[in-house]
Amino acid sequence: MSSQPIEFWFDFASNYSYMSVMRIEQEAARWGVTMKWRPFLLGPIFKSFGWSNSPFVLQTWKTEYVWRDMERECRKYGLAWKRPSAFPRSSLLPARVALIGAEQPWMGEYCRRVMQLNFAADQDIDSVACMSEVLAELGLKAQEIIDQAQHETNKLRLRRQTELAGTKGVFGAPTFFVEGEMFWGNDRLDDALIYARASKPPVTRIS
Amino acid sequence: MSSQPIEFWFDFASNYSYMSVMRIEQEAARWGVTMKWRPFLLGPIFKSFGWSNSPFVLQTWKTEYVWRDMERECRKYGLAWKRPSAFPRSSLLPARVALIGAEQPWMGEYCRRVMQLNFAADQDIDSVACMSEVLAELGLKAQEIIDQAQHETNKLRLRRQTELAGTKGVFGAPTFFVEGEMFWGNDRLDDALIYARASKPPVTRIS
Repeated sequence: MSSQPIEFWFDFASNYSYMSVMRIEQEAARWGVTMKWRPFLLGPIFKSFGWSNSPFVLQTWKTEYVWRDMERECRKYGLAWKRPSAFPRSSLLPARVALIGAEQPWMGEYCRRVMQLNFAADQDIDSVACMSEVLAELGLKAQEIIDQAQHETNKLRLRRQTELAGTKGVFGAPTFFVEGEMFWGNDRLDDALIYARASKPPVTRIS
Repeated sequence: MSSQPIEFWFDFASNYSYMSVMRIEQEAARWGVTMKWRPFLLGPIFKSFGWSNSPFVLQTWKTEYVWRDMERECRKYGLAWKRPSAFPRSSLLPARVALIGAEQPWMGEYCRRVMQLNFAADQDIDSVACMSEVLAELGLKAQEIIDQAQHETNKLRLRRQTELAGTKGVFGAPTFFVEGEMFWGNDRLDDALIYARASKPPVTRIS
């Protein structure tokens, strides 16, 4: 694996994050790049710009286009898609759980399931019931993880993580970082991986 | 050639239009798709949203990222790049000339030269002197074309073309249309061409 990992900043509420969540583990593996999950909340970032909602909602002239684009892009990547009846959905508990799972082997599958609930099954994701079901399906101790996720320490950690996103210059999601180089949007995932791959080619060992 | 052409809506002031202007003729030829040039002005579109300037300028948190992205993307496509010292540049006369040239064989080369002046040579483009030089270099009767371009009929035509962009739902540039299907951004040029190509495959003639 390359020694320059890709940091993946995403929010379960973000539709373009959906595509990257579904693609990134497989793509990173294909490029031989290690990845780091960085769940955060876009809401406070948008608020810091004076926006009360997603720009896709506030900029009404863009809304219909975004949904049409999602439909086409999901087809392109072979992903299921159903336009969510609520957007953006609250993603607080899913993000808190993701922070607990970020270094765990179940993280990828967990993130994909939550994203599919939001953007393929049109279901609310921000509830203990929903999270319990997802975690149980993964064979995990749901209650234990949810308790950890809702602990004050973890709540604070998510606030800090979101503040860090702001400090790093994140203004949307998904956003990727490789060695401080920022890439914004699912459309830049490949570029970010190529950059990571080139930044430090793996050493060829002569045995 | 496919019978479903791609319409290419662009503004010489727009940095992401630069990349599409440089790429589109070659890419369309590669896919066997005919193209239609649709120069227009983004300014009035942005004004209709209540924006006094480009969102890349108004959304200050995005500005530096956009220039870094341009640098990387131009490298990816093998295009020269120099961050313009003025942005967005006025593109009124270049757009008026482009309207005259839209159906002419010199259109592609004209557009590429104007874009290179703006985004690779960091030069102002909205002057009779600049346009005269570009047109003369193409071996054209510069004064005649500029006179046509500045005629009231043509000025009105550009206003109408820009209004039409708004009516069609254009909110940025470059924008591509294939059979009423809209694609926004240089990142969607390939998708638009693939869509055009698939929409009506060329007839195979058996001789």
